[in-house]
Amino acid sequence: MPAAEALLIVAASEQSADLYYATRFLAPDAFIFTQIDGRKILIMSDLEIDRAKEQSSADEIISYSSLQSEAKKKTGGPVGMAGVLDHFYKTRGVASISVPPSFPVAMADALREKGYSLTAGKEPFFPQRMVKRPDEVAAIRETIKATEDAIKTAIDLITQSEIHGDELWLRGRPLTSELVRKTMHLSMMGDDCLAKETIVAGGLQACDPHCIGFGPLKAHWPIVLDVFPVSTRSHYYADITRTIVKGKPSEKAKTMYRMVREGQEIAFGMLKPGVDGKAAHDAILKHFEKNGFKTGLIDGRMQGFFHGTGHGLGLEIHEAPRVGGVSDILQEGQVVTVEPGLYYLDAGGIRIEDDVLITKTGCEILSTFPRVFELG
Amino acid sequence: MPAAEALLIVAASEQSADLYYATRFLAPDAFIFTQIDGRKILIMSDLEIDRAKEQSSADEIISYSSLQSEAKKKTGGPVGMAGVLDHFYKTRGVASISVPPSFPVAMADALREKGYSLTAGKEPFFPQRMVKRPDEVAAIRETIKATEDAIKTAIDLITQSEIHGDELWLRGRPLTSELVRKTMHLSMMGDDCLAKETIVAGGLQACDPHCIGFGPLKAHWPIVLDVFPVSTRSHYYADITRTIVKGKPSEKAKTMYRMVREGQEIAFGMLKPGVDGKAAHDAILKHFEKNGFKTGLIDGRMQGFFHGTGHGLGLEIHEAPRVGGVSDILQEGQVVTVEPGLYYLDAGGIRIEDDVLITKTGCEILSTFPRVFELG
Repeated sequence: MPAAEALLIVAASEQSADLYYATRFLAPDAFIFTQIDGRKILIMSDLEIDRAKEQSSADEIISYSSLQSEAKKKTGGPVGMAGVLDHFYKTRGVASISVPPSFPVAMADALREKGYSLTAGKEPFFPQRMVKRPDEVAAIRETIKATEDAIKTAIDLITQSEIHGDELWLRGRPLTSELVRKTMHLSMMGDDCLAKETIVAGGLQACDPHCIGFGPLKAHWPIVLDVFPVSTRSHYYADITRTIVKGKPSEKAKTMYRMVREGQEIAFGMLKPGVDGKAAHDAILKHFEKNGFKTGLIDGRMQGFFHGTGHGLGLEIHEAPRVGGVSDILQEGQVVTVEPGLYYLDAGGIRIEDDVLITKTGCEILSTFPRVFELG
Repeated sequence: MPAAEALLIVAASEQSADLYYATRFLAPDAFIFTQIDGRKILIMSDLEIDRAKEQSSADEIISYSSLQSEAKKKTGGPVGMAGVLDHFYKTRGVASISVPPSFPVAMADALREKGYSLTAGKEPFFPQRMVKRPDEVAAIRETIKATEDAIKTAIDLITQSEIHGDELWLRGRPLTSELVRKTMHLSMMGDDCLAKETIVAGGLQACDPHCIGFGPLKAHWPIVLDVFPVSTRSHYYADITRTIVKGKPSEKAKTMYRMVREGQEIAFGMLKPGVDGKAAHDAILKHFEKNGFKTGLIDGRMQGFFHGTGHGLGLEIHEAPRVGGVSDILQEGQVVTVEPGLYYLDAGGIRIEDDVLITKTGCEILSTFPRVFELG
């Protein structure tokens, strides 16, 4: 029997998008997926085997405990997961194994010790995951719809608020990041979408792009709403950001908003198959620099535009390709975010983010929510 | 300079409870944590460095991009994460590295290639994570409270339902798993808890312990409610299951319920420091067997009691120790679930789950929700 090569993933598919992609089976605990000559095989615990038979897209499903009993009979001693795999691979003539870069080192070491040639592949482990099929694009569009509905509820709340001193108040109380976040989460839950760490950050909090925001929202300062739920039906993400202000924004904030919008348009004009995402990112940075909006350490804090322009979107919120400081050539069918931002301690944070599909000749903006800055 | 040993974790703390435990810093993308001579060091991207300085419990926070620039000057070529780590470890005299078993094999291989001795530790990587401090127990209690409130809303809905044929109806429509699940999710969201894949499974669906349930709920058959949210404030989980029936349960289901309750009591009586969780698990299995409730393949399906009795609970929903088929000696301060179950295709599924704290002399049941089976 010629030595076959196997792909191997050991992970919980709730945490591994590669594994969910390969199996369409969602489980909270680690299980074994291996592919030999294009044939998808699952080795499942007693707890999950019947559900896997019903729900997964695998070609063959084998009982972990049966393999373990067989292996124990041979060796006489206790048999762990590497021993179970060893027993199984021997029956299939497998000698070399290809794993994702994130494969657990302890399991890799155990298999190498048993004589297997094990090599880590590159991300993305399934490059075809980057290129979305029509049903995947449709799933992303559906999550985008739920995301936009949630952003609308947030903007409605903030529009209804009144300015008391330098704070926004609603129905006699300060309007907080927490309340706006919870209102959006409820809206998304109604659409079978799960959101966490949704960003509602105003004032200086918005200068930190990953600060989720807390406490009373400030009048006259930009408020960043960055919303990125996953659909509990399809498991595909969306990721949209709007920045709005209630009251009178500073001249600098207004110019920053215009800059960031222009940055988006630069990317929309450039993104198409064969183009390097880095070129779009560099063009935006250059546009900002040329207009006096520098990036780097200022007064000991990172300011300007110090994150990537965008990232792939799908079964993960951040996946390949990247549109940022590292080269990555775009392909038709990829879905990426376009989210330039500018952050300065004297004016706050501005970020605008839309999701685009790379088409044959350019890109199609999938998100349609209006970009408004100053609320009435 | 003597060669130091470093602990190293490279992960996204939103996915790695070990990393969150060590840093108290939540981030969606992978970052570097290393501990040298007890000193906790973070190496952070420009995007996260300022938030890490504010929020993390690290002793030292270093800029990834600064290290990368220094390393590039030395080597002249591009420098990836392993190169950045190599540059950093050289300045600190580190030659050997200890990583968690789940550490990514590609990064491990890259560091070994650069001459480091890298060894994978065992789970749990931080054994002290198993033993909960009083503030951690308090956090779990708070999540338990939210979980119990949600179970109450579910049981209220099912109690209010009426029996139409063999289905439960509420307000003129079938009462579905989906509606009960959504009602519980809304309740938990109100308590700042995030739940997904909450199980509301009746009829034959409940025979598969991880089937989340779908469609109209059945009268006269047991309905499993297994609820395991995480607090978005504290990040600690709870995990509670109740099984109820609306209508007239079969005699077999009633006996199964009594068996499972007795199984719980067997565990409550045995769990204390120094006891092997496996002994409690085996005692429950034996009790079931003795009363005619066998476990194994029946008609090609796993039936009986074919999952563990319990698992540790904390920053992860499933963590060490286990109370199941593998030996694991309990310690004071651990929090574990006690969740025996019985599943037969001719009677449905029954599972009852509570969360207990191992005390000096026994265990304290943290969950207080009443165990009712037949609803009025």
